[in-house]
Amino acid sequence: MTCAPCPNACTPAESVTEAEAHPLMGDIEALRQRHPSDIADLLEQAGLDPNELVDILLKIGNSVAGETFSRLSMETQKACLEAGPVKRMLQLVEHMEPDDRVDLLKKVDPEVSEGLMPLIAQAERNATQRLWKYEEGTAGAEMTTEYAFLSADITVGEALAQLRLQAPNRETIYYVYITDAERHLLGVISLRHLIMSKPRQRLCEVMTTDVISVFHDASLDTTVQQLTKYDFIALPVVDHQNRLLGIVTFDDAMDIVKAENTEDFQRISAVLPFEEEYLRRPLGRLFWSRFWWLAILLFTSILSTSVMAYHADILHQMVALSFFIPMVIGASGNAGTQSATMVVRALALGEIRPRDFPRVFSRELLMGLALGLALGGMALLRVFWQEENLLLGYIVGMALVVTLLTANLVGSLLPLLLKKLKFDPALTAGPFIATIIDAVGIAIYFQVAIWLMRG
Amino acid sequence: MTCAPCPNACTPAESVTEAEAHPLMGDIEALRQRHPSDIADLLEQAGLDPNELVDILLKIGNSVAGETFSRLSMETQKACLEAGPVKRMLQLVEHMEPDDRVDLLKKVDPEVSEGLMPLIAQAERNATQRLWKYEEGTAGAEMTTEYAFLSADITVGEALAQLRLQAPNRETIYYVYITDAERHLLGVISLRHLIMSKPRQRLCEVMTTDVISVFHDASLDTTVQQLTKYDFIALPVVDHQNRLLGIVTFDDAMDIVKAENTEDFQRISAVLPFEEEYLRRPLGRLFWSRFWWLAILLFTSILSTSVMAYHADILHQMVALSFFIPMVIGASGNAGTQSATMVVRALALGEIRPRDFPRVFSRELLMGLALGLALGGMALLRVFWQEENLLLGYIVGMALVVTLLTANLVGSLLPLLLKKLKFDPALTAGPFIATIIDAVGIAIYFQVAIWLMRG
Repeated sequence: MTCAPCPNACTPAESVTEAEAHPLMGDIEALRQRHPSDIADLLEQAGLDPNELVDILLKIGNSVAGETFSRLSMETQKACLEAGPVKRMLQLVEHMEPDDRVDLLKKVDPEVSEGLMPLIAQAERNATQRLWKYEEGTAGAEMTTEYAFLSADITVGEALAQLRLQAPNRETIYYVYITDAERHLLGVISLRHLIMSKPRQRLCEVMTTDVISVFHDASLDTTVQQLTKYDFIALPVVDHQNRLLGIVTFDDAMDIVKAENTEDFQRISAVLPFEEEYLRRPLGRLFWSRFWWLAILLFTSILSTSVMAYHADILHQMVALSFFIPMVIGASGNAGTQSATMVVRALALGEIRPRDFPRVFSRELLMGLALGLALGGMALLRVFWQEENLLLGYIVGMALVVTLLTANLVGSLLPLLLKKLKFDPALTAGPFIATIIDAVGIAIYFQVAIWLMRG
Repeated sequence: MTCAPCPNACTPAESVTEAEAHPLMGDIEALRQRHPSDIADLLEQAGLDPNELVDILLKIGNSVAGETFSRLSMETQKACLEAGPVKRMLQLVEHMEPDDRVDLLKKVDPEVSEGLMPLIAQAERNATQRLWKYEEGTAGAEMTTEYAFLSADITVGEALAQLRLQAPNRETIYYVYITDAERHLLGVISLRHLIMSKPRQRLCEVMTTDVISVFHDASLDTTVQQLTKYDFIALPVVDHQNRLLGIVTFDDAMDIVKAENTEDFQRISAVLPFEEEYLRRPLGRLFWSRFWWLAILLFTSILSTSVMAYHADILHQMVALSFFIPMVIGASGNAGTQSATMVVRALALGEIRPRDFPRVFSRELLMGLALGLALGGMALLRVFWQEENLLLGYIVGMALVVTLLTANLVGSLLPLLLKKLKFDPALTAGPFIATIIDAVGIAIYFQVAIWLMRG
């Protein structure tokens, strides 16, 4: 999360890439005028060592430095914090948003965070400790505590005056939450409606009382879905007694969506998820996150090998059978991936639920049959034309009908089953299932061959 | 796009699903109290025919009806517009946001849109025509013209008074754009800063003059990247003379990101992109969007078949060679997909550019060799153990080294090349490339076999 979105930003970084060549240190004033996102970009690209980087940030100073620091990549932030004497970093860490600070402190060497915590000012330390306890992947862990709040009995005019005072320390003041003395969430009003209301009206008359909120233990998926469904700038997070704990803002939702999509892509392509940027991930660790998957898949593919070895005698009778194995497993793998990806995506977007099983089943049964007959027919003609062997043509064609139907049903129904069992349905879109479907496809192919060659 | 995000929303739809059973018509007042997103959900789920649906919307009336209508799925909107007499729909269409209206009118039967346009009130018609001309996939086509703007010479106090009047008809008033008489974009100020400024100050003293904007012909990628980089609520869209044309808001950016991710998933899984929800897409059209890809892939896989047929004599000599073909093509396909997906994702997130070619090449060369040697070694042992044939073990192991290296380099460098040539790099993550890599893998496998069997 970052500071409240504000349009006070200067030229985008692209137009001044020459500035990289200059020693950034010499032109702190020019740097300070830029948007923290751009300063962070420049600092990352300049290839400074952590100490130089901290020097520049300390010269920039204050909240701009704090915000720039939290927009650096997590690895750079960690490197800075672990490099310097703890006291030197205190100023930067204190100026971070509480949720960014917790994210960072959870990731650095425990010795560093334990050394830093007692030095942080009381108020900031309390906010940090409050956020620390929420579990990763929940709304509580993603929220910030810097929301604007007012009490119900003041007038609109008083509210605007109070907001002026709160504004500098709030993530957003565009939604204002109305709470009682125990922080129970009573209502909400947007700044837009506040401005349009009469100054003498009381907040309790103009606020909306049916507030949409999420519990602190809600999943990130639920949180993002609520926020985007209603196009909110911020969504309040409450405990189970409806006491306001914090807010999740639209820019967090965007970060969550991007991170989840990256993870889905990694899963689909059988890379163990990692957070660093591509070029930043050390080769050794990248090797392991790829190797394990490839090794597992290599051993799973032994299933296919064993099925073929088991049918060695038929292969001896008709070596040409083996020519079409890449075609059969390719077609069933592709069809299975198609239906798995569509169903996984539809589940992620909330378009279908596990209880839609019967509808998905009947659709995909029909679809699998149609695709199988169409592609099986094409393959029959193709094989007959290449090998001039009608028997082989029938074998390949019929095997395609059965394997496509099977792959289609497995690909579409397995994600629903996983979702029902509370596993991540995206697991099925990955190559692990594809490798198993390969073996099943080959087994079906040989069964069809045995059956037709006997007949 | 939707109306300005406002928190005036009631209980989420989930909690009242019983309401579906009741005739919605009977309880218009209760319906009107709910958030347009929830009303749209209820209407979609109720399975009404287009005329019934329009009846209910017309009873709800005004901007709530217009906003609810634009939150229905595009298919439902189309069905309503094409069903009713054009005049009946006029009220709903006039109350839509201009950008939503243009989206819809571009998609309905031209006869309907041509019948409707002359009836639309002058101001709304002008906005529609202005937006109509921008090409799909540009910032211009995605923006709304309902932004808040003021002139530079008024005071902060006057500005707040004018904003109160503009607020009801603006997508957002949280960013206010300062323009001259010819609409040149001079500055921007957030409502937050406006409220914090002294009432007597002039806007030209408090506004930010370095405004970050995009041109109307900027791609959606660029637009979303600028908006999310700075965590803006809205991003101004200008022509090449820096005249303000409209704004793109954060909720549009979220919709764009979601739509692009869905498209990427469809591409990866070889389904021709479609926009409808999974269960809404008619089976016939779904069949074709899947069939074409599968048919193309089936014919591409004939490459593999031909390579094998060409080497039929070696297969006769050693049938066991064929057992390991699924393993060889599986491993190289998986490794190629891994690197392609990582590079495609890194390109999409702006982490790497085509000019990073040398760094990517050296990384993936090393990685391919390391993965090849590790997996090749494992395969050698495995094959020797199963077939007790050291020669076959060497063949499979060596083939894996070469195919993994090749697949890794092709998978990582091809996306960079496509990007350089201005094609969509995501094309390479799809199964088409995988199928070609399969054939290359098999060819390498047989070459290695020939070479080692001779030696």
